[in-house]
Amino acid sequence: MTKDDVLKALSTVQEPDLGKDIVTLNMVRDLTVEGNYVSFTIVLTTPACPLKELLKKNCIDAVQSINKNALVTVNFTSSTTTLRSDKGSVLPNVKNIIAVVSGKGGVGKSTVAANLALALSKGGAKVGLMDADIYGPSVPIMFGVRGERPMMIEVEGKGMIVPLERFGLKLMSIGLLVDEKNAVVWRGPMASSAIRQFVTDVYWDQLDYLVIDMPPGTGDIHLTLVQTVPVTGVVVVTTPQDVALADAKKGIAMFGQAQMNVPIIGLVENMSYFTPAELPQNKYYIFGKEGGKRLAAEYDIPFLGQIPLVQSIREGGDIGIPILMSDEDITKHAFLELAGNVARSVSMSNAHMKSEEIAEVVE
Amino acid sequence: MTKDDVLKALSTVQEPDLGKDIVTLNMVRDLTVEGNYVSFTIVLTTPACPLKELLKKNCIDAVQSINKNALVTVNFTSSTTTLRSDKGSVLPNVKNIIAVVSGKGGVGKSTVAANLALALSKGGAKVGLMDADIYGPSVPIMFGVRGERPMMIEVEGKGMIVPLERFGLKLMSIGLLVDEKNAVVWRGPMASSAIRQFVTDVYWDQLDYLVIDMPPGTGDIHLTLVQTVPVTGVVVVTTPQDVALADAKKGIAMFGQAQMNVPIIGLVENMSYFTPAELPQNKYYIFGKEGGKRLAAEYDIPFLGQIPLVQSIREGGDIGIPILMSDEDITKHAFLELAGNVARSVSMSNAHMKSEEIAEVVE
Repeated sequence: MTKDDVLKALSTVQEPDLGKDIVTLNMVRDLTVEGNYVSFTIVLTTPACPLKELLKKNCIDAVQSINKNALVTVNFTSSTTTLRSDKGSVLPNVKNIIAVVSGKGGVGKSTVAANLALALSKGGAKVGLMDADIYGPSVPIMFGVRGERPMMIEVEGKGMIVPLERFGLKLMSIGLLVDEKNAVVWRGPMASSAIRQFVTDVYWDQLDYLVIDMPPGTGDIHLTLVQTVPVTGVVVVTTPQDVALADAKKGIAMFGQAQMNVPIIGLVENMSYFTPAELPQNKYYIFGKEGGKRLAAEYDIPFLGQIPLVQSIREGGDIGIPILMSDEDITKHAFLELAGNVARSVSMSNAHMKSEEIAEVVE
Repeated sequence: MTKDDVLKALSTVQEPDLGKDIVTLNMVRDLTVEGNYVSFTIVLTTPACPLKELLKKNCIDAVQSINKNALVTVNFTSSTTTLRSDKGSVLPNVKNIIAVVSGKGGVGKSTVAANLALALSKGGAKVGLMDADIYGPSVPIMFGVRGERPMMIEVEGKGMIVPLERFGLKLMSIGLLVDEKNAVVWRGPMASSAIRQFVTDVYWDQLDYLVIDMPPGTGDIHLTLVQTVPVTGVVVVTTPQDVALADAKKGIAMFGQAQMNVPIIGLVENMSYFTPAELPQNKYYIFGKEGGKRLAAEYDIPFLGQIPLVQSIREGGDIGIPILMSDEDITKHAFLELAGNVARSVSMSNAHMKSEEIAEVVE
C-alpha cells in the first residue's frame, strides 16, 4: 500500500456539501503510510463543520476497501474559507462577515445572532459578535456587560475600540458606546453614519466569522452597511407567523436587489413551536407550523433550521445568560445545528455555489 | 313600607362604575310594593354589564335593611348609552363605535376584535363586526364565510351592503367585497377612500356596538376613519413584548393627538402567557410578564384584561371557529371578562368620566 494507493482510494470520498472529492479539493494533508498504518489530516473549510464523523467513516471505509487490515487515523484541522481578497481595506483580518437581519422586530433576531455566534465559537472558530441594532441594542443585557466601557488601543496610528470577551467570544455593542437614551433618537443619515464608524473603528483582529446583529427592518442603514463592509451574506430570521413572513419576504427582496446584491446564507425560523421544559415531548405550534420552511422553499434559499421556544414554569424570562451557555438542552441543540448549517452554507457560498444549489444540500 | 321608603333605601345603592346611586341615575323602574313583596327593574347602561349580581345583592340588602321580611324581586333590562346625537349622519342607528387597533401586526388584533364582538353579543347586546383591515382581512377565514358575496338592498334610494350574520353577530369584511389579491395593492389615498366608502355603505341598522377591526399601525387610514366615522373610542391591543409595547405607545400617542382626539377605551394585553390546554395550571410568560399592564398604568388608561395563549397538542392552529364559540374555556372566560370591561369603560366614558377616572375603576 503506497501513498498513491491511499490517495487514489481517498479520491472516491466526496465532500458532501461541495460535491467534489476530498483529494481534488486539496483537503488531505500530512499523509503517512507505514505497513498497515495510515494517517492523514483532513483540512475542513470550517471548524464548525457538522460532517466530520461522516467524512471520517467514509475515509476509513475507502482505505480499507484497498487493504482490509489498514489501521487508519484521521485527524482534522480547519482553515475557514473566505472570498475576501481586499486585505487592505475594512476589517482586513475577518474572513467572513455574517449579517443577521429580520423584516420586523420581535422575532428574536438578537437571540439568534448571539447564540449563533456562541455556537460557531463552540465549534472551534474565532468569532466576534457585533450588536449594531442602534434602535434596541441587546448584547449588554444578554451578556451581562451593561455599563462596561470598552478600552481603546492605537493600531497603526489610529485609535480603535477593543472588543470585550465573554464565553470565548469577542463582543461589541453600540449600547456600550452611547448613552441608552440617546441611541433611539438617531435617524436616517445620522444612524447610517454612526453605524459606519462603529463597524470600521472596532479592532476585531483575526476572526473566522463576525456576526452582526442588524437593526430590524429594511432601510437605508442596511444599504449603508453593505456599502461599507464586505458582507459575506445575510441570515434572515423570521417566525412562522404570517405577518413576520410577509416582512421577511421584503428583507429577502431587498438584499437581492442589484444595488445590494448580498448572498442570502439562509433563513432561520425562530419560535417554531413552544415546548414546556418539563414536557419536552409536547410541541405547541402556537404561531402556525413551518411557515419559515415553506418560505425558504418558495424563494429557493437554504433553510438553516428551526429554533423552538422552550420555557420552564420556574423562570419568567431573561436570566442574563445566553441560551447556549445555560443548561437548557433543546434550544442549545437547535442552535448548534443552526451554526453547523450556517458554516456549511458560507463554505459552499465561498466555493461559488449558488443559493439554490446550497438550498438543495442544506435541509 | 311605601314606594318612597323603598326608593329611599335604594338611593343608598351605588352604581359602582359611575360612582352615583342608582336612584339619582334613574336606573330604577316599574317599582311595585305589595305588603312584603317588592319588585322593580334596574335599567343597566349595557347588557354586557358584569356587575349585575353585585347590584342585585346590594339592592336586596338595602330593602331588607328597612324591612327584614321583605321579599325582593330584581329584574334587569338595559339601554346601552351613547354620546351620539348626530342621528342624521353616518351610521345613524349605531350607539357606540369601537375601533380595535394595534401599533404593529402580529399581536392578535383581529382575534381580539372578533371575540370581543362575540362576547359583547353573548351578553345580550346587538353587535356588528366590521373587518376594515384592508392589508389582511381575517373575518372571512375566522368565521368560515370565505367566498360568500353579501347582498345589496335599497335604503332611502341608496344601494347598501347587507351584513352577513353568524353566531348572532352582524359581519362585514373588506375581504368579502374585493378580490383577495387586489386588496394588498391599495396604498395611501386609495386605501383611505376605500375604507371611507366601506364604512358608510354597509347597512348595519340598529346596533349597541359596532366593533371595527382596523388595519395595524398608525397611519393616514386611521385619521380618515376618525374623520369619517364618529368613533366612540379605541381599544389598543398589544403583547407583553418590548417591541409591541413600543408600537402600542405610538398608537396611544396618535389617537390622543389634537387632530384625532379619540378616547382610549383601554388596553388589552394579548398572548399574556402560554398555557397548554392539558395543563391549565401552568402559565409560561414567554413574552415577558405584564408589560401591557405596566404600559396602561404608565399612560393612565384602563387596563381591560389579559388574554392567554392556550393550545392543545392535538390541534395545530386555525380551526375556523372563533375561540368564543369553541369549547376552550380559559380563553373564552378571558374574552368575556374583557367584553365586560370594554362595556363598562364605554358606559363610563359616555357618562363623561375621564380616562384616568375609568382606569381607577377598571382593574
